[in-house]
Amino acid sequence: MDNFRFYCPTEFIFGKNTVEKTGQWIKKYGGTKVLLHYGGQSAVKSGLLAEVENSLKNEFIEYVKLGGVQPNPIDTMVYQGIELCRKEQVNFILAVGGGSVIDSAKAIAAGVPYAGDFWNFFEKTVTINRALPLATILTIPASGSEGSENTVITKKKEGLKRGLKSQYLRPVFSVMDPTLTFTLPNNQTAYGAADMMAHVMERYFTQTQGVDITDRLCEAVLLSIIKEAPVAMKEPRNYEARANLMWAGTMAHNGICGVGREEDWASHGLEHELSALYGIAHGAGLAVIFPAWMQYVYTSGIDRFVQFAVRVWGIEFNGDKKETALKGINALKEFFSSLGLPVNFVQLGIQSNDIDQLIHTLRINTGGQFGAFRKLDMTDARAIYEIAAKG
Amino acid sequence: MDNFRFYCPTEFIFGKNTVEKTGQWIKKYGGTKVLLHYGGQSAVKSGLLAEVENSLKNEFIEYVKLGGVQPNPIDTMVYQGIELCRKEQVNFILAVGGGSVIDSAKAIAAGVPYAGDFWNFFEKTVTINRALPLATILTIPASGSEGSENTVITKKKEGLKRGLKSQYLRPVFSVMDPTLTFTLPNNQTAYGAADMMAHVMERYFTQTQGVDITDRLCEAVLLSIIKEAPVAMKEPRNYEARANLMWAGTMAHNGICGVGREEDWASHGLEHELSALYGIAHGAGLAVIFPAWMQYVYTSGIDRFVQFAVRVWGIEFNGDKKETALKGINALKEFFSSLGLPVNFVQLGIQSNDIDQLIHTLRINTGGQFGAFRKLDMTDARAIYEIAAKG
Repeated sequence: MDNFRFYCPTEFIFGKNTVEKTGQWIKKYGGTKVLLHYGGQSAVKSGLLAEVENSLKNEFIEYVKLGGVQPNPIDTMVYQGIELCRKEQVNFILAVGGGSVIDSAKAIAAGVPYAGDFWNFFEKTVTINRALPLATILTIPASGSEGSENTVITKKKEGLKRGLKSQYLRPVFSVMDPTLTFTLPNNQTAYGAADMMAHVMERYFTQTQGVDITDRLCEAVLLSIIKEAPVAMKEPRNYEARANLMWAGTMAHNGICGVGREEDWASHGLEHELSALYGIAHGAGLAVIFPAWMQYVYTSGIDRFVQFAVRVWGIEFNGDKKETALKGINALKEFFSSLGLPVNFVQLGIQSNDIDQLIHTLRINTGGQFGAFRKLDMTDARAIYEIAAKG
Repeated sequence: MDNFRFYCPTEFIFGKNTVEKTGQWIKKYGGTKVLLHYGGQSAVKSGLLAEVENSLKNEFIEYVKLGGVQPNPIDTMVYQGIELCRKEQVNFILAVGGGSVIDSAKAIAAGVPYAGDFWNFFEKTVTINRALPLATILTIPASGSEGSENTVITKKKEGLKRGLKSQYLRPVFSVMDPTLTFTLPNNQTAYGAADMMAHVMERYFTQTQGVDITDRLCEAVLLSIIKEAPVAMKEPRNYEARANLMWAGTMAHNGICGVGREEDWASHGLEHELSALYGIAHGAGLAVIFPAWMQYVYTSGIDRFVQFAVRVWGIEFNGDKKETALKGINALKEFFSSLGLPVNFVQLGIQSNDIDQLIHTLRINTGGQFGAFRKLDMTDARAIYEIAAKG
């Protein structure tokens, strides 16, 4: 087990009718002038935004609004948000939405008190040492951004999608009402499940030995998602299924599943190129990329893949490690398929001859080397994209 | 699933050679004058205390020392600590030890800024609304106090052992170096394992339905302890076993295993009378009480006991719920036995005719009613003590 620090000071307020007290929570955390950041029209139409605004008004908290965050949030919106916050002297950011809105809010929070270009943080030329406090009202369980120290932003012009990690990006609180997810379309629920599972698996597949408790916690979260996602899709208003899935998304990415071990994140790197180039849903891209990555690397740590097959998918170990490992990978693919997720590039709407372009930006974003479970270069990346193309 | 709030802002610094930076952490969290609180001579003899003092000196942090905390920490030490902190104008408390030292430190931290008698908090006549910041250097994995909002103190004269829970009692940071536990005697390791398992089981056995992810997380922690405790006892210097066990203790009691559900805590209530009256180790008492409680209540929620048997102990469900449930309870007893833990009052050194005295103080401490999985009264308590007496 490696040395680690674990610090997740986000206050989670979970359950029914929790949105109405948002204003009180903001007050507790010192917000007096708020940027209300959100996505498209669904938060408006559902009445959620009005409820949030009322909650702020009840506490006499001033606010300005900035909507229109798109999936795979982009730098131009972040610049707009930073400018607005400065002009309006905002001291607290409230993200109402899913991972894209929250990630956009995080980038704004980091950018406001920084005199230079916020993109410097994403280029890793400057380190964040403060940010505006931010909070979330989660509407899509998937990214785990409500409890994580991560954000991912796409620089639109260059098509660069980059992640950033800093303790200053943890929300001070997150309101999580599972009933807000009752109206999620099935494809969104499925993308969310794939994204959560990927967050766990990026941490599960490690070469670090002897971190059994973290293995077990990872398996616990995976087993929960595997159980609850199909129920939530069949019965969208099943509170327990929605609630378990929502909390699983937080557990998958708040760091608890990664303590004491080297994490991988190769599949996320490979996927980011897909969603940056084609604007596809991150979860859909992961459903295609992750099994392809597994097929390519499983021989680099077959015992771990056998454990994955046995403990997560209930596959009996028959004495043949390779066969058992492949059965586990196949079980994952079949599960993704059963949720209606794509399994190859064609189903994603991508022609395999675009791989050159994917490799081109991946090289820029990674510097040519990535991954930890197996160190990968651009030749490996091409091979994995080719597996993913066929599915 | 019930609504819940989860907030665990403790920063965990985990791994080898982490003690040496203690002074830097205290500085980060604003401590300038520290109470160094510890137990017996082991922290002195091992050199740990000297290392901690050096770390403070390196950062020019002033400190005063108060050692001598006994297992099952008592009120008189707390009064002494409060007085010392006031006199010396201490603004930060550092507990170096196991749960007893940390719990004593927590009570002192709450008592210093409060003008009245700190015991009022434990009598629940006054609510804590602030406390000195405190941190821990953990030497015994068991109580989970390094990451919990709980403390338990015994009022010596009256023999009352009472628990207290408040967000102000969470350590701001906890340094956890598994190598500090290499020298723990086997009985201490076993008591710790029983205590951790009890912390999970108090949350696992609930009537709240549909909190599957929390079930899975509980099982993950239990499975880890069941795997690692025997290894740590056989190979006391096995780093991975000690590390997994140490982190399991934190996960067992930082709250993550209890979200969204009603918790029980009947066994802890029953056990506190034993350790208050006889000064026995809390973990030893729990090893006797918990299985007895299970035998008495399992019919009130047999499905949960079947799940416990199947998922935690790998017992096959043969179609007979009662038989499967009892097999699970028996597996727990056998596991405790295999660690050399006592299984009845005689092995604990208690004569069964003392049950009257236990019931007498239990009635005072609980008001006559306790438990949640099954609501219990003093007749039930007597029956459980009688089962425990026989083992």
